[in-house]
Amino acid sequence: MRNPLLVPDLREFLQGGEEDALREFLGDQHPGRVAELIEDLPDGEGDAVFRILESRERAGVLSYFENDEQNRLVEAMPPKEAAELLRVMSHDERAALVNRLDEDFVDEVLPNLAQAEREDIRRLTSYEPGTAGAAMTTDYVTLPAHITVREALERLRHEAPDRETIYYCYVVDHNRRLIGFVSLKRLILARRSSFIEEIMQRDVIFAKVDDDQEPVAQTIDKYDLLALPIVDADARLVGIVTHDDAMDILRREQTEDILKFGGVAPDPEADTVPYWQSHVFTTVRRRIKWLMLLFLAENLTTPVQQHFQWTYGDQKIPALALFISLLTGTGGNAGSQTVGTVIRGMALGEIKLSHTLFVVLREWLTGLCLGLMLGAVALFYIHFWRAQPWGVSGVVAIALFGVCMWANVIGSLVPLAARRVGIDPAVVSAPFISTLVDATGMVIYFTIAITLLGLVK
Amino acid sequence: MRNPLLVPDLREFLQGGEEDALREFLGDQHPGRVAELIEDLPDGEGDAVFRILESRERAGVLSYFENDEQNRLVEAMPPKEAAELLRVMSHDERAALVNRLDEDFVDEVLPNLAQAEREDIRRLTSYEPGTAGAAMTTDYVTLPAHITVREALERLRHEAPDRETIYYCYVVDHNRRLIGFVSLKRLILARRSSFIEEIMQRDVIFAKVDDDQEPVAQTIDKYDLLALPIVDADARLVGIVTHDDAMDILRREQTEDILKFGGVAPDPEADTVPYWQSHVFTTVRRRIKWLMLLFLAENLTTPVQQHFQWTYGDQKIPALALFISLLTGTGGNAGSQTVGTVIRGMALGEIKLSHTLFVVLREWLTGLCLGLMLGAVALFYIHFWRAQPWGVSGVVAIALFGVCMWANVIGSLVPLAARRVGIDPAVVSAPFISTLVDATGMVIYFTIAITLLGLVK
Repeated sequence: MRNPLLVPDLREFLQGGEEDALREFLGDQHPGRVAELIEDLPDGEGDAVFRILESRERAGVLSYFENDEQNRLVEAMPPKEAAELLRVMSHDERAALVNRLDEDFVDEVLPNLAQAEREDIRRLTSYEPGTAGAAMTTDYVTLPAHITVREALERLRHEAPDRETIYYCYVVDHNRRLIGFVSLKRLILARRSSFIEEIMQRDVIFAKVDDDQEPVAQTIDKYDLLALPIVDADARLVGIVTHDDAMDILRREQTEDILKFGGVAPDPEADTVPYWQSHVFTTVRRRIKWLMLLFLAENLTTPVQQHFQWTYGDQKIPALALFISLLTGTGGNAGSQTVGTVIRGMALGEIKLSHTLFVVLREWLTGLCLGLMLGAVALFYIHFWRAQPWGVSGVVAIALFGVCMWANVIGSLVPLAARRVGIDPAVVSAPFISTLVDATGMVIYFTIAITLLGLVK
Repeated sequence: MRNPLLVPDLREFLQGGEEDALREFLGDQHPGRVAELIEDLPDGEGDAVFRILESRERAGVLSYFENDEQNRLVEAMPPKEAAELLRVMSHDERAALVNRLDEDFVDEVLPNLAQAEREDIRRLTSYEPGTAGAAMTTDYVTLPAHITVREALERLRHEAPDRETIYYCYVVDHNRRLIGFVSLKRLILARRSSFIEEIMQRDVIFAKVDDDQEPVAQTIDKYDLLALPIVDADARLVGIVTHDDAMDILRREQTEDILKFGGVAPDPEADTVPYWQSHVFTTVRRRIKWLMLLFLAENLTTPVQQHFQWTYGDQKIPALALFISLLTGTGGNAGSQTVGTVIRGMALGEIKLSHTLFVVLREWLTGLCLGLMLGAVALFYIHFWRAQPWGVSGVVAIALFGVCMWANVIGSLVPLAARRVGIDPAVVSAPFISTLVDATGMVIYFTIAITLLGLVK
């Protein structure tokens, strides 16, 4: 949907110093489109266009930039200008932005805001991540029950510029307790002289401020709502969660199925953290649970083969051959976990092509930790329980270590390489990676055996 | 969010014949909640409550029922009543409903509708599935550019009851060409005497009627829109896609990643079809592509083992042992495909616990077809290329056939069983299934070898 034809127009206005014409031109565009235009300009020119916008428009455009870019643009502003921007921003985005900005800068900016705004920011930043409170915004419309529709419409007209949505109005009593709901559609349809309490819906669907954000988003989705009101422990209205934020929450949740399907244990706490911010040890902890469990289950392949080896007749299966399935199976599992993680990160936009080197290094490090743990277990397990000499258990242990690192490297590299050449990375499936690890894992295994056992042809 | 306390109230009204009280009680509820209440009542009583609702409310409630239930309720109505319901239904849901209803019944109902409504239904049902046209609705608001804000608001008030949304208004010229956009928020904020053309946004984000529905939904998501206008080849406005439909489209798309990750080839045509409606042969066709390709890749494990078998010293690896990885690897791949399909079906609500038997039978049949094809290839490949006797290649072929069926049965049974005992089915990961198939697949393999080769201990 990007329109490259607009960029030359924009640059012409800019170079001619025609600020008014530029403002009018941009005012006809959706803020998301303006953000794209600014991104398509060289850095200095983009910043110049951004500075020309009046503050409300600027707030709208800002929300379409990446977080880092938002921080950069805001921190480049004089504190007074930044404060004015914060004043007109949507309240949830403002709280998120303040959380990310440099603390010293925030200390300079906040005194320029009114007490109520500062209080609002403080409150919204204080909720536990992952709760309804952390996902909600406070720029919604409330109405008292005793006013008329005419008065309500007049009030909406006054408040509209500062509200994220005016399409849903919540009716509260003098203690701010939620007692009803009326949509703007219903207001428009009603007689102007009716009272709000006559036309409002009394059975309001709501959620609590400390509810988990996922069921909140599911409720919005299920009932096709534009927003869901959030109340505190005393049934007082404290915010709303809007449909677009619900969509983001559901996306995070749905893509989580890919992670689980790749064999990474769910972890509600770690899961609200983006790929980059989660610690490698958190990643290792989430993966080792299933990986170790499946490793132990995979060990069954050894006694099964031993049990049936009489079918080979006189030929006795060599000790090293007994552990091939254990090794390639575990490598495939580690690879599936990595692919699941990387594909999800790409689907959420957290992992980009430019991160390839970092992602591969990070996954290699994860594979190193996982391989060390599995290798240590294998070393003793195979020697003592499977009664193999240290030579065999040592080879299997070191091969496991190598295969885990290898599986994690290709599990992260292949989906990124697929995108690089224009293939949908999601087709790099778990079966694809485990098949790849099956043949290559054997080469690693035998090579280590040859080296360690001093075998010569 | 279900409130079981309301059901006794409802039954009391119903048994007391207090229809007016009942209507008032239900009018205070969100239609989605009314639908739940009706579902919680015994069949006869639920139908009685549904019949009491006035037609607009009834249309709202109907949309929250499952498709089968919608068909049943509507087909039980006299044709005139059904026509009145269709008249007030949202236009996209109405078209979808007509598509599903019994043809003879539709022939009785349609003559009771006005020409324009019949034409609208005919047009909306004629678009290619998966396009913007098939996802859009036609009950939106248009405004001419030359009227004032006051006149526009008056018009909205008239049209609101019949429109899915009045929050976004599209400005069209006398040829219905889309020339602008104005939100109700902007209308409310504007001076009453302003003309629409003065306040409208001229750069409207839109899509074409034959565009793929996925990018359309992504655009709605990206710009946080409530709806996106859809135009035909002559730039005439023909419909809108709303945010809640976009959410459904995106869910379908995002969960598709699970399918791909499980190793099922993407197929845009087959993918708009729900699990139940897709033919087993379509399923087989989508899976065999990757499965066969991976099977051929998995064959590399045999020459790798042969190449390295000198490391075993005097011991020569038995022929049967050479094909273990090929067999268990392919079984694991087939199982991953099945788990991916079933988990996605459950995430979309297409597969329910009550379908367990059907799903398992269907997947078993799919496994049978896949196993036949893979087995046939293995029989000749292993005999001619790998120079093994027919006995060995026969055992591998039949074992492949058995393992594919087995993998598909457990791949469908285990996630459903997990849900039955209250475990999140998505934790039944690809690694879990391939590990399970590794050990059990060997048992199948050796058992078949013993039987076929007439081996005795």
